[in-house]
Amino acid sequence: MTFKFTVQYDGGNYVGWQRQAAGISIQGLIEDALRPIAGGSITVNGAGRTDAGVHALEQVASARFETSLDDATLQRALNAVLPPDVRIARVERAADGFHARFSARAKTYEYRVLNAPLVSPFEHRYVWHVPHALDVEAMRLAARAFVGSHDFAAFQSAGGHVHTSVRAVSAADVTWQPPRLAFRITADGFLRHMVRAMAGTLVEVGSGRLAAGQIAEILDSKDRARAGPTAPPHGLFLISVDY
Amino acid sequence: MTFKFTVQYDGGNYVGWQRQAAGISIQGLIEDALRPIAGGSITVNGAGRTDAGVHALEQVASARFETSLDDATLQRALNAVLPPDVRIARVERAADGFHARFSARAKTYEYRVLNAPLVSPFEHRYVWHVPHALDVEAMRLAARAFVGSHDFAAFQSAGGHVHTSVRAVSAADVTWQPPRLAFRITADGFLRHMVRAMAGTLVEVGSGRLAAGQIAEILDSKDRARAGPTAPPHGLFLISVDY
Repeated sequence: MTFKFTVQYDGGNYVGWQRQAAGISIQGLIEDALRPIAGGSITVNGAGRTDAGVHALEQVASARFETSLDDATLQRALNAVLPPDVRIARVERAADGFHARFSARAKTYEYRVLNAPLVSPFEHRYVWHVPHALDVEAMRLAARAFVGSHDFAAFQSAGGHVHTSVRAVSAADVTWQPPRLAFRITADGFLRHMVRAMAGTLVEVGSGRLAAGQIAEILDSKDRARAGPTAPPHGLFLISVDY
Repeated sequence: MTFKFTVQYDGGNYVGWQRQAAGISIQGLIEDALRPIAGGSITVNGAGRTDAGVHALEQVASARFETSLDDATLQRALNAVLPPDVRIARVERAADGFHARFSARAKTYEYRVLNAPLVSPFEHRYVWHVPHALDVEAMRLAARAFVGSHDFAAFQSAGGHVHTSVRAVSAADVTWQPPRLAFRITADGFLRHMVRAMAGTLVEVGSGRLAAGQIAEILDSKDRARAGPTAPPHGLFLISVDY
């Protein structure tokens, strides 16, 4: 049987989605929770390999194993052993051959900024705190320049191991509900640290250190040093995955 | 000079407001942050001595010391050394003799319940998860029975060291925005674990294990064993203090 899991998590306490040599990963937690149910080691594949500290509202994961448990019981069994900052929000059966990452058509991420002098104790782990004034219109213009098929090499960190850095961005928008600013982007795939490099660059634009019109030339340069800094992980959320 | 501080905190990582022999307290953090500014040890008094795990949207604290810093600089200096889950939201000068606890006329607390099968990873530290159906109308009726001057001995934990367990409750309401239920109460003072014992009792009423009409007789009994269990601390917020 092939299962499709919808997973929510607060990434603040973890080394990221992917199992690592050291530290606790979301993938590792779910694989360990499934082992006694599946009767042996199994692999859980996630749609987005979120970095350490990055959160997910709707990560999707797939796994193949046999069980006599119905979906609701399987969900309860997993949530009973997972820590409360990782939740299985939905369990579904998928067609054979379904793979959370390879079958995905598009993913949507959102990067959240709090633009105020102070961040509340209840929000600081979920936003990038940028206290100074931002030119939101310029950021909106700059975000639109990401839309389309581009080589995003200038927005990629080393270590991604990909064949091509061309990705198709179908939507990229900035929303502003003071004091909260969010950059939401949908693409067929993402490079390593791509959304965080974009968010860091948009804040440079909002701060007046880069012009919105420079995004196109930064893309053309394929030079990571031309774009802005990588924004911190705790402002980033995987929002949804489309199949 | 007498200072009035408005303080927000996520109590999840602390032993409570009050300085203890072991563990980190909010009071201790603020006193330690003030010491280099005040040039020596000082005492910071809080309006509500919130328990371990209890949160505050607007705790009020007072302290007497001399400084040449203006209020905005003092606020920035404190927030620069305090952890991000404790924030000084406002600094004001108060009249001599102002004492955050003894000068308070009333305090408002809110107890939050999430009434749904699952709690999100982003909310679990701030609500009591009650998954079964609740009779909200019965809880509303029961909450109203707390209003007035009563001896709340039945809603007090041992160890409170108070002269009288009579308190005047000026408002007590249950609000219900599914799946979130909140019990908000304003009184001239609170006994040890009083709001949590009330919240635990209201959930007993909502679950059909107690009748709303029994609140009056539980109050009359002055017997802690007659009321419901003490609800967990992480659903409780100190909302505001009136002077």
